[in-house]
Amino acid sequence: MSSSNAYREPEWRSLEWSPDEKKVARKAFDAALQDELALVMRKAKAMAEKARKPSDLWNLENYLTKCRTEIDRRYDYRYSVLPEVFGGLLRERKLTQADFSGLGEDKIEWIRRLAS
Amino acid sequence: MSSSNAYREPEWRSLEWSPDEKKVARKAFDAALQDELALVMRKAKAMAEKARKPSDLWNLENYLTKCRTEIDRRYDYRYSVLPEVFGGLLRERKLTQADFSGLGEDKIEWIRRLAS
Repeated sequence: MSSSNAYREPEWRSLEWSPDEKKVARKAFDAALQDELALVMRKAKAMAEKARKPSDLWNLENYLTKCRTEIDRRYDYRYSVLPEVFGGLLRERKLTQADFSGLGEDKIEWIRRLAS
Repeated sequence: MSSSNAYREPEWRSLEWSPDEKKVARKAFDAALQDELALVMRKAKAMAEKARKPSDLWNLENYLTKCRTEIDRRYDYRYSVLPEVFGGLLRERKLTQADFSGLGEDKIEWIRRLAS
């Protein structure tokens, strides 16, 4: 295999994050995660309250398992994957461009690209 | 291996159940299962109502998974395992001797033995 075919790490994986950028990133990340968890909380409480038959309980169980797995998978705060994570959250309107204010143009550009 | 060492099916696995006994068995079985499910329903609703933090949700998920698995495992209505099932339910006071009234002495004796 020639070296030109070798795996090349995507550029956004090795961006340098300044201490100020890390603060912005952490704040945006935590806000999205809190929103997500609050939504699961509301929906789970409503499902439990409305539950009448056993299948309603197993649907609730299934919903919680799905949310937990999905949240574990998506909310990964390693800087090497953060542009991807933020891109996904931007695409789904769980974060807006305003949440990234304070990040360098290199990050914002990658987040936008990965969102689209 | 001599035939005297060969596996011998426990005697209570091949009891004959009359139509009337089957009705008694079904009624006791369903009553215990309904009680069990009602308890899970009450407890799950209370857990959801009290939930404040994400870990409360995952505890609820875990509780539901445990209950579903355990109920699937225990509530097995095959006549070949019913004396065991009833023995377990009697041991845990989820059924009483009165629930077995109408079963033949052979079944009641096995249920008692398997309960102890």
